[in-house]
Amino acid sequence: MNYHMSPEEFRRHGYKMVDWIANYLGHVEEIPIYPEVEPGEIRKRLPDKAPERPEPFEEVMNDLDEIVMPGIMHWQSPGWFAFFPANSSPPSILGEMASAGLAIQGMLWSTSPACTEIESHVLDWLVDLLGLPATWKTAGPGGGVIQSTASDATHTALVAARYRAGGSISDQVVYASSEAHSSIEKGARIAGFEHIRSIKVDGNQSMDTGALIAAVTRDINTGLRPVFVNSTVGTTGTGGVDPVLAIGSIAHDNGMWHHVDAAWAGSTMICPEFRNHQKGLELVDSYVFNPHKLMFTNLDCSVFFIADRTPLTDVMRILPPYLSNTASASDEVIDYRDWNVPLGRRFRALKLWFVLRSYGAEGIRHHIREHVRLATELEKKIESHPSLELIAPRHFSLLSFRHVAGDKATGQLVDTINESKKSYVTTSSFDGRLFIRISIGQTRTAAEHVDRLWKIIKENAATVNG
Amino acid sequence: MNYHMSPEEFRRHGYKMVDWIANYLGHVEEIPIYPEVEPGEIRKRLPDKAPERPEPFEEVMNDLDEIVMPGIMHWQSPGWFAFFPANSSPPSILGEMASAGLAIQGMLWSTSPACTEIESHVLDWLVDLLGLPATWKTAGPGGGVIQSTASDATHTALVAARYRAGGSISDQVVYASSEAHSSIEKGARIAGFEHIRSIKVDGNQSMDTGALIAAVTRDINTGLRPVFVNSTVGTTGTGGVDPVLAIGSIAHDNGMWHHVDAAWAGSTMICPEFRNHQKGLELVDSYVFNPHKLMFTNLDCSVFFIADRTPLTDVMRILPPYLSNTASASDEVIDYRDWNVPLGRRFRALKLWFVLRSYGAEGIRHHIREHVRLATELEKKIESHPSLELIAPRHFSLLSFRHVAGDKATGQLVDTINESKKSYVTTSSFDGRLFIRISIGQTRTAAEHVDRLWKIIKENAATVNG
Repeated sequence: MNYHMSPEEFRRHGYKMVDWIANYLGHVEEIPIYPEVEPGEIRKRLPDKAPERPEPFEEVMNDLDEIVMPGIMHWQSPGWFAFFPANSSPPSILGEMASAGLAIQGMLWSTSPACTEIESHVLDWLVDLLGLPATWKTAGPGGGVIQSTASDATHTALVAARYRAGGSISDQVVYASSEAHSSIEKGARIAGFEHIRSIKVDGNQSMDTGALIAAVTRDINTGLRPVFVNSTVGTTGTGGVDPVLAIGSIAHDNGMWHHVDAAWAGSTMICPEFRNHQKGLELVDSYVFNPHKLMFTNLDCSVFFIADRTPLTDVMRILPPYLSNTASASDEVIDYRDWNVPLGRRFRALKLWFVLRSYGAEGIRHHIREHVRLATELEKKIESHPSLELIAPRHFSLLSFRHVAGDKATGQLVDTINESKKSYVTTSSFDGRLFIRISIGQTRTAAEHVDRLWKIIKENAATVNG
Repeated sequence: MNYHMSPEEFRRHGYKMVDWIANYLGHVEEIPIYPEVEPGEIRKRLPDKAPERPEPFEEVMNDLDEIVMPGIMHWQSPGWFAFFPANSSPPSILGEMASAGLAIQGMLWSTSPACTEIESHVLDWLVDLLGLPATWKTAGPGGGVIQSTASDATHTALVAARYRAGGSISDQVVYASSEAHSSIEKGARIAGFEHIRSIKVDGNQSMDTGALIAAVTRDINTGLRPVFVNSTVGTTGTGGVDPVLAIGSIAHDNGMWHHVDAAWAGSTMICPEFRNHQKGLELVDSYVFNPHKLMFTNLDCSVFFIADRTPLTDVMRILPPYLSNTASASDEVIDYRDWNVPLGRRFRALKLWFVLRSYGAEGIRHHIREHVRLATELEKKIESHPSLELIAPRHFSLLSFRHVAGDKATGQLVDTINESKKSYVTTSSFDGRLFIRISIGQTRTAAEHVDRLWKIIKENAATVNG
């Protein structure tokens, strides 16, 4: 007697699931992007108690359509211009399938050497592909590791910085620009920092390094210790770029850890023409970018590079007797459990490897360039429209603009775009004023989708007036 | 021009991947469990540079067999008795497929209401299924959240405890037994605690509460503040169980956060007969268990319950303008980003929902009971064998024993078992002496696999002699 689905039953349901996914990928563009559900509405469709008896898998599949789909926001729609993309692609989905089927646990090299070695190798490939310092390869003092999200990676960097600084945390100070992602402050709070400074930005939404120097000096003069500074390459609000080299120099002079958050824009560095935005990586201690944003690889796949892994593994490594093994003792292998908070690790490198091989570097470059080109064209249209104004220079493929008539008109424009259900944008604010973000970069976004978005903006920008 | 795999090509490769997984599930038992590879051997088979041009997916699939498989340890083999299981099952794999296909990002309720609501609902189901306090349901002050691993969940609990205690961390103290999992110490270090006490255990590998009281008293007398104590239900070494109620009472009297690590054994609580091991949950602040161990759900699926979510969300919540939305402002929804370190979140509840429905509660109970029954039978055989001795009482389905002739004989026995490549066990040590752990609980482990393991132990126990 057993309750397991047999391999043959799995094959039957697996084919149907593949059909379901293929159908979704083929038709996601036609589905209204965001769901119209009230809080609690999905839960109401579920029974109060878990089923006591097994249910046929056909019913589960049926509920995927009936219960789940009405509550899904379609991040994979080519009309997705909201937040940043969380891109997927067919090779990545196939990688997730293989990973789920093998279901190994890569905490140690020895618990599946292929999991660790493919991760190290593919991240070494990325060092070359993205023009990063060669010392970040695993053969050097540093190396790369896949973490779940950039928030995890940044938190890890903060912990390593705190450890390297030593002594009490109560006099340690963290710095980031006012436009840095919330994960910096969140990670710093979680790591226990008590002093977190928000440094003002200039008109390009870049950190004002004069203000940074002033803050660092002020803190030193009051007996505090500057230990960590974050540079952002591609801020979430407007795609702003901090002066990485100048910040690195300040960090170096003051013995601070210099972390670069390139979560979104990092993938674009596969195209050499964008690398001018991150000059100065030689003065960087750690760097994060998310292939799960622009590199067609399913969340979760956040890549964390560190220039010197020693402080990281020193704080993370504890070897209890139940994990002791010959390979770890030999010091010839990487045990990635010592590079992040979790012990257990999925085989996430598989999907990234599948993507890099299926697209080739040229395929990824092609699509990233095309998205930036589409953003450049749309930028001109917005600039030349009398009712619209960009609120910051375009960087990469993100546009930030508002209606000249003010927040009410901007809000109306957003509602009109989103109520079309074919395009979806989100907003942010700067200096207390609302603006619209258009983040071009969803895997399947092409010229026709940006044209459709522009048509609705153009048609409505003249009529909304706050 | 585009480099994307079309939905129809995905369907074709998807069917092949399903066949590949079905074949793996059907034959994993016949594959030698652990790979014979040297450090660096897998990497040597990979090209130095990422491919510039796209490669046909057939070649990627081919390399899955040629390059990846020789470096895989087969956690899904029914001969797996090592560490704890990291179980998978066909319904869970189908859930991972659906999640990868939809590729939504559930950071906020509003970014896919179904992701949040199914997570809340299924975890509420588990409160009832496992006999946990009803106040842990999301309608109450607490609630459940899926985290990646128990290490993440325990770290989260430590951060919430540190925040609730307030003031400086430099006088805060964390307590756990000497047999607690390494994730307690690792999480405490990462959260910045400077004082971490290891409390001795009694002959049952349970925390000695007298020693805990003594340590707490000593720390208070020297001006420190006890803020966190961990109880383990099912230690990694020997399956030991701490006295949850007594520890909870000490925690309560001293205003400490009481966390329960039931990462492994928590799933067994679906069977009421095991719940005597965790009496006293009313005095618990947080609790973690991993459906990705014994509940047939793929890693990563670690369930974290908290009795009062306020300190957790207070420390984690930052609402930047680019994430602001009507639903979050209404306070009528859960935004799970505020319950964990990461911002981005995969739709992990889907696989757990699929598993609970496909097995039904009775299916999960059946298999857990069967594994415990197999462990009970094997325990008798070990007890009655003149060359073997249990080093601790059996709890649940973990057996810990050694050869009476000492470490050398125990080591030889382990090698013999593992070199068979049909069964795989790991070791640990206690009081400086090596022992063998037999963790029965892999999804497909049945009587025949335990019999095969026992046969090899019995045949060799008499001949090895250190």
